[in-house]
Amino acid sequence: MPSRVYKKVELVGTSTVGIEDAIQNAVETASKTLNNIDWFEVQEVRGHVQDGKVAHYQVVLKIGFRIEA
Amino acid sequence: MPSRVYKKVELVGTSTVGIEDAIQNAVETASKTLNNIDWFEVQEVRGHVQDGKVAHYQVVLKIGFRIEA
Amino acid sequence: MPSRVYKKVELVGTSTVGIEDAIQNAVETASKTLNNIDWFEVQEVRGHVQDGKVAHYQVVLKIGFRIEA
Amino acid sequence: MPSRVYKKVELVGTSTVGIEDAIQNAVETASKTLNNIDWFEVQEVRGHVQDGKVAHYQVVLKIGFRIEA
Amino acid sequence: MPSRVYKKVELVGTSTVGIEDAIQNAVETASKTLNNIDWFEVQEVRGHVQDGKVAHYQVVLKIGFRIEA
Amino acid sequence: MPSRVYKKVELVGTSTVGIEDAIQNAVETASKTLNNIDWFEVQEVRGHVQDGKVAHYQVVLKIGFRIEA
Amino acid sequence: MPSRVYKKVELVGTSTVGIEDAIQNAVETASKTLNNIDWFEVQEVRGHVQDGKVAHYQVVLKIGFRIEA
Amino acid sequence: MPSRVYKKVELVGTSTVGIEDAIQNAVETASKTLNNIDWFEVQEVRGHVQDGKVAHYQVVLKIGFRIEA
Amino acid sequence: MPSRVYKKVELVGTSTVGIEDAIQNAVETASKTLNNIDWFEVQEVRGHVQDGKVAHYQVVLKIGFRIEA
Amino acid sequence: MPSRVYKKVELVGTSTVGIEDAIQNAVETASKTLNNIDWFEVQEVRGHVQDGKVAHYQVVLKIGFRIEA
Amino acid sequence: MPSRVYKKVELVGTSTVGIEDAIQNAVETASKTLNNIDWFEVQEVRGHVQDGKVAHYQVVLKIGFRIEA
Amino acid sequence: MPSRVYKKVELVGTSTVGIEDAIQNAVETASKTLNNIDWFEVQEVRGHVQDGKVAHYQVVLKIGFRIEA
Repeated sequence: MPSRVYKKVELVGTSTVGIEDAIQNAVETASKTLNNIDWFEVQEVRGHVQDGKVAHYQVVLKIGFRIEA
Repeated sequence: MPSRVYKKVELVGTSTVGIEDAIQNAVETASKTLNNIDWFEVQEVRGHVQDGKVAHYQVVLKIGFRIEA
Repeated sequence: MPSRVYKKVELVGTSTVGIEDAIQNAVETASKTLNNIDWFEVQEVRGHVQDGKVAHYQVVLKIGFRIEA
Repeated sequence: MPSRVYKKVELVGTSTVGIEDAIQNAVETASKTLNNIDWFEVQEVRGHVQDGKVAHYQVVLKIGFRIEA
Repeated sequence: MPSRVYKKVELVGTSTVGIEDAIQNAVETASKTLNNIDWFEVQEVRGHVQDGKVAHYQVVLKIGFRIEA
Repeated sequence: MPSRVYKKVELVGTSTVGIEDAIQNAVETASKTLNNIDWFEVQEVRGHVQDGKVAHYQVVLKIGFRIEA
Repeated sequence: MPSRVYKKVELVGTSTVGIEDAIQNAVETASKTLNNIDWFEVQEVRGHVQDGKVAHYQVVLKIGFRIEA
Repeated sequence: MPSRVYKKVELVGTSTVGIEDAIQNAVETASKTLNNIDWFEVQEVRGHVQDGKVAHYQVVLKIGFRIEA
Repeated sequence: MPSRVYKKVELVGTSTVGIEDAIQNAVETASKTLNNIDWFEVQEVRGHVQDGKVAHYQVVLKIGFRIEA
Repeated sequence: MPSRVYKKVELVGTSTVGIEDAIQNAVETASKTLNNIDWFEVQEVRGHVQDGKVAHYQVVLKIGFRIEA
Repeated sequence: MPSRVYKKVELVGTSTVGIEDAIQNAVETASKTLNNIDWFEVQEVRGHVQDGKVAHYQVVLKIGFRIEA
Repeated sequence: MPSRVYKKVELVGTSTVGIEDAIQNAVETASKTLNNIDWFEVQEVRGHVQDGKVAHYQVVLKIGFRIEA
């Protein structure tokens, strides 16, 4: 069996709703162009503030997917 | 145009509800005394446990705001 | 008064619902065998992806509890 | 019950005596202007050397205190 | 001789010119309200891009100053 | 409004002139194939030495750009 | 000769006296239940403050011991 | 389906042969007392030197296993 | 001479044999689609365990290659 | 005025007494062969344990000194 | 062909002019006593402030050179 | 008994064969000029690639040895 090789790309998902929604947005956008997405790893959680409230969350994450060898 | 300068302060927001609520609590408290808050960066997520349940979340975050030069 | 000593163990909670639920699952599982759990510290947030959606969240956390001296 | 919010400030305590004394100096100085100091976290231990001996210790620490909401 | 205590604050200096200019802008802005500034430590160098060119540099730095005890 | 998603790629810009020039070279090269470049984050500054002088600077940086969803 | 294997556990020693005493308290507590303790590694130094003074030190450390294979 | 919870323990495997052998020694020793071991993560590679040669390798690793809920 | 620019991509090579073989697998897979690969940097060494033995190694590495300007 | 250049060397001081004594031992040993020692920076605090007690402290530190240009 | 071995030393270059000049000062000073210097890696950028202006930059860097085997 | 003091130097061993061989090359080269080498700590594993294959491994490591006081 040949060995599998994976690639990781770094995305920033955003959401006005929350952290899980920002992760889901990044994963869904990535899945439009990448097959075989397998896992994600959160790198940073940040966000913008407007008028004393969180306006949107920004979640930096790595997304791992298998490369068709 | 003179260059903008920003300051970052480190707060710990707490919440019995969840991580986003703890962030929001810190941002709202900061906005009572600081103008021009622009962004936040989560540093750590911790919390206290009582009777085998999460009693409250503690989110350490930095809050960035523009300084009036 | 003798000094207190605490121990920290590292767990990975998982959940199909979200990050707080994964934390709560780890805390509840730990509390079945450990008394005196006092706090948790999130180390990493990761997860698995299936069919372009987050299938479950994996939260690596440390759980601190007082040792009976 | 409204959620508590804490602030962390970064100080450098110095002492010719030792590390604990440098911590104590920073904590005492901070307590002159801040109420509700609750904890400290050591970030770095450094120092100056003169004539082949430690002349003074410099302890970089964060000091956390509750904000009156 | 009483021990000296220093405080560190975190600023973000910006400049269209370069990294040293962004540092200098942050230091100058800080010196309008703080006496006894003694040193700085660069934490991050970032910037914004417009039309394929660096539009401005953002240097996150800590600024250390002696506290009047 | 659908949520924006960004991607970060890691480049190494080089220059015989200096750090800002190496950053600019990486940004310009990236902008030939990527639209919507928005920001950069310096990761490392290194370089090669020849005959006791800096021969060129190598700046490792991440470049962030909006993905067309 | 079979290869030795060691385990590391993470403890938090506390003391009203100082950092070395907190380390010693953790080591002594660990040695009540673990044989063959060989070394420790300090991870963090923190503490609680009451009335403008350090009330107790908290030293997070790892303790390494040989496993009976 | 109830959520799975995993635990991570930190071991140090040693070997006179090489890094993979040290990992394997730690994994085998752990598997004598732990069921359901699933993965490992290398933390550090170190070793002892005698007479100008590597006498043995020491690999610090975390071992993850599913907890029977 | 125009300045060279390099790109770094993050891959995960796997192998049942060992760490060097996992690195080689990632490098070979990358070289099928990338020209001018110049260097690699290991980020993490992990692996899966089955029946008390290392089933395969997973080496996360960055691969650097020159971009055709 | 020509610019000053400093060098940093990494030492491990040991002591049966405590952390400050281990630092002092390293500084004194370094000062036998190095002039112009100016500062130290603690990197790690570790130690050996025998019979359930700290046998000696090991402090890894960097020592900075001015180079005679 | 015997394998090459390199050594890295840590220096602090200073300059009143800027970061590149501080790097160049450290490289030039090192090249007076070391042959075969090949590369440098910036570790930290700091500096001193006087009268609200940057008085000099301090760049901590590692310098790598081939050892004559 | 006077306290022992150790020094750590940073080397880069290279090898066309593998990681352990690169470590061994660095240790052997160091032992030609240093007595009392006691341990090593791997800092980074990198390498060069030629024609889609690993051309040689570069292992950055620290080597610790006792100083004759």
